[in-house]
Amino acid sequence: MTEKTTKKRTTEEKRTDEDVIYVGHKPPMSYVLAVVTQFNGNGSKEVILKARGRAISTAVDTAEIVRNKFMKNAKVKDITIGTESVTNEEGRDSNVSSIEISLTTN
Amino acid sequence: MTEKTTKKRTTEEKRTDEDVIYVGHKPPMSYVLAVVTQFNGNGSKEVILKARGRAISTAVDTAEIVRNKFMKNAKVKDITIGTESVTNEEGRDSNVSSIEISLTTN
Repeated sequence: MTEKTTKKRTTEEKRTDEDVIYVGHKPPMSYVLAVVTQFNGNGSKEVILKARGRAISTAVDTAEIVRNKFMKNAKVKDITIGTESVTNEEGRDSNVSSIEISLTTN
Repeated sequence: MTEKTTKKRTTEEKRTDEDVIYVGHKPPMSYVLAVVTQFNGNGSKEVILKARGRAISTAVDTAEIVRNKFMKNAKVKDITIGTESVTNEEGRDSNVSSIEISLTTN
């Protein structure tokens, strides 16, 4: 779903698509690992967790586990909720709630 | 789970427990109705949705339905996430994520 972007990091273009982690139906620890890798391995200053529907609670779990267990210096900078329109298999549109949790380190 | 409080409203004590709606495993519309009643029937200026675990996504659904369908003037004032410790039936403690979404009208 995410577009592939260049790995080059410039000061002008600080946030890349790599800093966005899409949370789905795997266990929270999969996403925790992705977040920690993004901060510690790739040197991101801000990581955004995005989730829709049922995965919203997994995104919150992920943020809380990162913050409480793995990176005590991580903070929740911002949380936004929204509604997205999705087309199901039968071709009908339905609305699904979404969340974006942005985590930062000091 | 919520304690019963007096119905009297004073200027000093504006937010009562009535303004907190605990979201559980009913369909979102049950909680949407509770929120709309709280704003329109009881005259609250701020309503807080609280949920834990899987119900977190239902709380987000509720806020989004209120905002998009029933009360276009309602805004998400603040969202906070946290972790609560709960004791299960076997007496063991486990952690569960929680969310608080505060909705206000202008």
